[in-house]
Amino acid sequence: MKILALDTSTDVLVVGFKDEEKFLSLTYKGIERHATKLAPMVKLLLDAAQVEPAKIDVLGCGVGPGSLTGLRIGISFVQGLACAFGKKITPVVSAKVLAKNFSTYDGEIVVARKAREGYVYIACYKNDEQIVEPTVKQIEEAKKIVGEMQNPMIVGDAKKFFLDVAKLAPDALENINAQILIEEVEALTKNGSNFEPALVQPLYLQKSIAEINFEKRKQG
Amino acid sequence: MKILALDTSTDVLVVGFKDEEKFLSLTYKGIERHATKLAPMVKLLLDAAQVEPAKIDVLGCGVGPGSLTGLRIGISFVQGLACAFGKKITPVVSAKVLAKNFSTYDGEIVVARKAREGYVYIACYKNDEQIVEPTVKQIEEAKKIVGEMQNPMIVGDAKKFFLDVAKLAPDALENINAQILIEEVEALTKNGSNFEPALVQPLYLQKSIAEINFEKRKQG
Repeated sequence: MKILALDTSTDVLVVGFKDEEKFLSLTYKGIERHATKLAPMVKLLLDAAQVEPAKIDVLGCGVGPGSLTGLRIGISFVQGLACAFGKKITPVVSAKVLAKNFSTYDGEIVVARKAREGYVYIACYKNDEQIVEPTVKQIEEAKKIVGEMQNPMIVGDAKKFFLDVAKLAPDALENINAQILIEEVEALTKNGSNFEPALVQPLYLQKSIAEINFEKRKQG
Repeated sequence: MKILALDTSTDVLVVGFKDEEKFLSLTYKGIERHATKLAPMVKLLLDAAQVEPAKIDVLGCGVGPGSLTGLRIGISFVQGLACAFGKKITPVVSAKVLAKNFSTYDGEIVVARKAREGYVYIACYKNDEQIVEPTVKQIEEAKKIVGEMQNPMIVGDAKKFFLDVAKLAPDALENINAQILIEEVEALTKNGSNFEPALVQPLYLQKSIAEINFEKRKQG
């Protein structure tokens, strides 16, 4: 089974490939944007794996929560591949994959990502179990939730808001691990959690600024 | 400062690149050996980073402990690059880099790698401080050392020997993290811990089987 999976939910672009013979991963973090780097990085990884895109059996994609534009770019790219080759897509909660970097930590892993001004996305895991599902909260409300936990550690680009209520994860462990991403995609696919391309959407838990403004204008 | 670093101490080939604008990493684990994959993977990464080998300022290399052949391949390759461009090499203890994957674990991180029959390499870190320097021990002796620790967790290809005296790290976290590798190379280089290519050697803590046999024959 040839699996290609990618994640664009953070500022690190992560692409992984696995089949019976090998695992490869490529990560990029830098001044160039996901839109510029994604296609060449995927091509490079598949070239390195000596695999034709048409031969891929399983397509996986991190769906966030995270930067909406980043997520749209990643999901759209995978949708393009899926449509081209008549495949389904296995969506993965990026926060869950990230939390698994800390599976030996004895406490609650809170993934906190920036949402719109004054808000954060949070999701919480303990011993690899989800204890708070991905949700969007006002920062103060999120801090209250975290403050009631026993031994919380915060990971993600919104972690600085939690400095006074929790430990902050080391920056070097903040990247999505491609092997964990691929394993998650593999497990979900075996459970039948793969979908027609059009059904895969970013885990976008808030209304966009455009939607809010549109509604405000309607209300007049 | 353009940094290229690689690690071949485990069965996962890890190559990382960093400069002021970007960080890239490439990992490979599979049926092909380090000797086959190393040169093409480095070339691929430098192509992806759009960097000429001649422009690299800092060369870093994991020196183990680990598979001697794997280490020799990685170090020789970096020595080749260093000689070609008149650079020094910054050697990094691979066990220390691996242990940093677990820097949020509340206990002793023991990196345990297979050595010759009946022996293991061990090194131990706690809160990112080295508490047992890399050393080779008989398995039973190593288990005794670990058994006296408070809350040890074992990582590395020899971890199964310690099943009854310590927690074992999850397999998915056993890969050298290229970002941590690069950060370690960067910090050591700034401290002046870089050396002429000929001085860089694998952290090989035991006599080779060939040496042992040679000495036995001499004693005859």
